[in-house]
Order: sequence, then structure tokens, then C-alpha cells
Amino acid sequence: MGKGATTRSHILQCAVETACLDGFEGLNLQPLADKAGLTKSGLYAHFGSKQSLQLAALGRAAELFQQTVVAPAKTEPAGLPRIEGVFDRWLQWPGSAGLPGSCPFFAAVHELDDAQGPVRDRLVRLFREFQQVAEQLVASAVRHGHLRAETNPTQFAHELLGIRYAHHWSASFMHDPNAHARTRAAFARLVGRGRTA
Amino acid sequence: MGKGATTRSHILQCAVETACLDGFEGLNLQPLADKAGLTKSGLYAHFGSKQSLQLAALGRAAELFQQTVVAPAKTEPAGLPRIEGVFDRWLQWPGSAGLPGSCPFFAAVHELDDAQGPVRDRLVRLFREFQQVAEQLVASAVRHGHLRAETNPTQFAHELLGIRYAHHWSASFMHDPNAHARTRAAFARLVGRGRTA
Repeated sequence: MGKGATTRSHILQCAVETACLDGFEGLNLQPLADKAGLTKSGLYAHFGSKQSLQLAALGRAAELFQQTVVAPAKTEPAGLPRIEGVFDRWLQWPGSAGLPGSCPFFAAVHELDDAQGPVRDRLVRLFREFQQVAEQLVASAVRHGHLRAETNPTQFAHELLGIRYAHHWSASFMHDPNAHARTRAAFARLVGRGRTA
Repeated sequence: MGKGATTRSHILQCAVETACLDGFEGLNLQPLADKAGLTKSGLYAHFGSKQSLQLAALGRAAELFQQTVVAPAKTEPAGLPRIEGVFDRWLQWPGSAGLPGSCPFFAAVHELDDAQGPVRDRLVRLFREFQQVAEQLVASAVRHGHLRAETNPTQFAHELLGIRYAHHWSASFMHDPNAHARTRAAFARLVGRGRTA
């Protein structure tokens, strides 16, 4: 990796860490330059605006999510074990990727729900892509006979996201010691009620 | 209501509207004074700091939530109809209270998850109080034979929150035209699987 690419990668790592703590709206050039050990003009040479930095940071966060949460499914047995694996890793994200704080995508939903523009559009596309991955995993589990034939993959993926959201609320916000047990029970019922008898 | 109380109430209404759009972190004294048609010192006479304003705005939002979402349950038939009523009104909140934007409590969870201090503590208490209300409604529905005896009210309330969260994501963020149908299906299954045969 050349010096320019190394610096760019270092800036993006700092940017994703910042987004986990302060959201993508928290990505201001001067504080990020300070964190990355650069001058503002040095950072500006790589990302000429807050928006281009936000878009690049979203892309980098998505790569980390893909590597940490989704990609390991390839080596897991097809069907329900892959859904369980992805869900387990999703619960541990973003800490499992070495990131501080909490899921930057969830935070960004609430930062950007009333916004317009390319950052929001990009995040919508990233969620759609992940929901499609989840739907494909559910459809595969149906084909393998691990879930009932009438399981609706889109509905299943939607409810899975709700369970993950409630986990964020109870674990990261409420600090409920039973958060993990609640999440496990909700997941077991989502899967169990769709499982072939 | 005296002039002071009227002004205070007007400021809080502006503050809650701001929180629905920009979160509680967005409650800065000067922009809020501009919105309320006051000088900054005029606003300062009522709320001496951003934090006291945030706490008062949280309290006002909680009052509106109580009035709009929870209180009407008193006139509904006891048991499951009250859960359905509260959930329906929760979906329509905060628009049903005449507020713009989206649920300020959900937004605040993501603003404050890595924070410390009295604003976060207050929000945690408000969520606990609402979860207790939900648990009491579930327990009542069990007593009325509308839900199975083994239904765990805390688990049910936890999962209900996940369904509401996923609704926010799909309706307000993804602008999914099927958001309402997905939410209805998730709620029907949560209730259906607990319902007495």
C-alpha cells in the first residue's frame, strides 16, 4: 500500500471509530484531523468535504461489517446454522471488529431519518443489501427444511432486525443484565415458530 | 396559567419539536430562543443550562406520550384490546401528538448510549416506566385469558419494543411501502403465539 493509500486507510479507521461514538454527523474535519494526527489541509487532500468523508466512512464500516459478520457464514453449514452464525456475530458487532461504542448504522438511522441526500441514500442501500443477504439465508434454510415452507424471508429478516434493535436498546442503553437472555428468547421464538415440525 | 408559566410551556413545546427533528443534543439555547421568539437571556431565565432544558423537554415529551399513547387505554376494554390500542397509538406517535419528525425517545437512545449523566438517567427511567406499563397490560391480558398463562410479560414487552423499533426503521428511514404490513404481521405473531388456544 502506498503512503497515500495508507494515510487514507488510517483516516477512515479513525472516521469509523468516531462514527461508532458520535455518529456520522460527528465527522467534522478538524477534530478528525486531530485524532488522525494530521493537519486539516492534510486530511482535506484526501477528503475534500464532510460529505465525501461520511460516504467513505460508511463504505469502510460496511466493509468491516461484511468481513466480520457476513463473510464467515461461507464456512458454516448451509441453512439455519448460517442464520444463527450471522445473528451471533451481528450481536457482537462492532466490538468484534475492534471498534468502540455501538453500531454506527443504527445510530445513523436516527441521525438521518429526517434528512435528504447521498449519505442517507447510501445507508438505505447498505441496509437493503444486508436485508437481501438475510433473506437469501432464510430462503436457503427453507430449502434445507430448517424453516417451514411458508416462511416469508422478507418478514423474517424484518423481524430479525427488530430483535437486533431491541438488543441494542436493552444491552447498550438500558444496561439490562438480562439483555442477552431476552434476545436469545426472541430469536429462538422467531426461528422456532418457523421451524419444520 | 401566568405569563411565566405560559412562556415556559411555549419554550418546552418548541424544545420537544426540536428534539423530534434534531434530537436532545440539538437543544442549543440560541437556536431554540430564535425558534421560540425570545432572546437568549429570556430563555436563560427559564432554563439556565442546556442540561436543564434537556431534562425539562424529556419530561414534557413523556407527558405528551402518556396523554397520547397510554392514557386512552383506560377507556378501552381490559386485556388484549388495551395492548392493541397502546401499540397502535405508539406507531402513530409522535405525529398523533402534533409533533414533527420521529420518536424523540428512540433518537435519544442513539445519542446517549455512550453518554453518562442525568439526561441519560432520566431517559432510562422513562423507558423503565413505559416497559412496566406494557408489562402490566400483558399481565392483565393473561389474567383475562387473552394470552397464555406462561406468557412472560417482560419478554413480551421487550419484543414489542423491537417490533416498534423495526417499524421506525422500515417506515421512517427505509420508506418501505410495506412497513405497516410487516409491523402488523410481527405484532400478530407476537400476540398470536401467546394467545390461548
